[in-house]
Amino acid sequence: MENSYILYHYPLSPFCRKVRLVLAEKKIDFTLREERYWEKRVAFQKLNPAGKVPALRNGKEVFADSQAICEYIEAIAPDDTIRLIPEDPREQCEMRRLISFFDEKFNQEVTSVLVFERMLRRIQQKGSPDERKVKFGLEQLKNHTKYLQFLIMHRRWIAGDRLTLADFTVAAHLSCLDYVGMINWKKEEYTEIKGWYSRMKSRRAFKPILSDHVPGYFPAFHYANVDFD
Amino acid sequence: MENSYILYHYPLSPFCRKVRLVLAEKKIDFTLREERYWEKRVAFQKLNPAGKVPALRNGKEVFADSQAICEYIEAIAPDDTIRLIPEDPREQCEMRRLISFFDEKFNQEVTSVLVFERMLRRIQQKGSPDERKVKFGLEQLKNHTKYLQFLIMHRRWIAGDRLTLADFTVAAHLSCLDYVGMINWKKEEYTEIKGWYSRMKSRRAFKPILSDHVPGYFPAFHYANVDFD
Repeated sequence: MENSYILYHYPLSPFCRKVRLVLAEKKIDFTLREERYWEKRVAFQKLNPAGKVPALRNGKEVFADSQAICEYIEAIAPDDTIRLIPEDPREQCEMRRLISFFDEKFNQEVTSVLVFERMLRRIQQKGSPDERKVKFGLEQLKNHTKYLQFLIMHRRWIAGDRLTLADFTVAAHLSCLDYVGMINWKKEEYTEIKGWYSRMKSRRAFKPILSDHVPGYFPAFHYANVDFD
Repeated sequence: MENSYILYHYPLSPFCRKVRLVLAEKKIDFTLREERYWEKRVAFQKLNPAGKVPALRNGKEVFADSQAICEYIEAIAPDDTIRLIPEDPREQCEMRRLISFFDEKFNQEVTSVLVFERMLRRIQQKGSPDERKVKFGLEQLKNHTKYLQFLIMHRRWIAGDRLTLADFTVAAHLSCLDYVGMINWKKEEYTEIKGWYSRMKSRRAFKPILSDHVPGYFPAFHYANVDFD
């Protein structure tokens, strides 16, 4: 029963998507189990006292918090898989800074707002969208897109010259926003970002994410299309 | 001018306190610069696009995000200083899970609420405390204290058998709550926690934190007292 990993997740969580991408890149098999974390299932609260997804289970062992899980996977994955954390402490620090920027600030101001208003609100039966919040989320998305564009214009990958966990972090957020139709790829500000996101989407690890399907909620038309055609 | 570190901080930020503690443990000299981050000073926003403290500067290099900074310090600190991150990937994961638990959930539900309502609100001239929020924060503190007590009753340190960054994280949060008088150490639920916190407070690195003083706001009576007398 060694390495029989179960990932408790929810499809529209950028944190779960990141872990799924990293497990796939690292060639680690796992089974997905959907967890409607907002229902606060008692057994799940015991599994992860933080009450949030993702949580990764292997027999009696439980790993929680997306960043902690990703760093753990990096440490235990087979040597012949791609490295996602740079060796250099400065590069590592820059990667962690950006992961935290997107997982905290960007998530709080953009992803969690727009995904909740556009989809989770109905799934959780919490009434109709608050259009002021949607407007706020879209404004913040516009601001943060400028920063993302700035990063991508100056670097090959988000945190520097190499593909790192920061790229999977940002791609996970964008893929959630794209699913709920909140990204207008035709806008000029996405020109550079589109190139980088195409490179991410064309990775084999991305495939299962692109075939995600939340019952009753179809993704935006171009969602699974690598070339944005 | 090598290793001339400047730490942009605010005294009542648990994130800044953690970095100060870790820099002191690692015997790295630094200068403190107080940053009233809520005033959104343009030069500071440029320094750290996340707009938050702490940010650590060394000449033209800037390191931001408390966890990223602490991991960086661990990597570059002199070899003869104490290790604060375990080598074992499982122990590392458990440490990161707990850091995230306290820096996200505990902070959001307890530290940031109570420190804001009890102190920052007046400093930022945002009216009088919202007593419902104080009540909510105190209830959450009670819940989370049970979890902390559970951890400390089963382990020598927060994340296991060794002193790690998780201990400094929790100590930083408790020290902020203690400063604003929100911890009633006489209550039974603090019995075990008090023992652990005494061990933390008696470390040399803790001294500067205990002599922190926010002008016009005196800390709780026992705040700087290692023995709680």
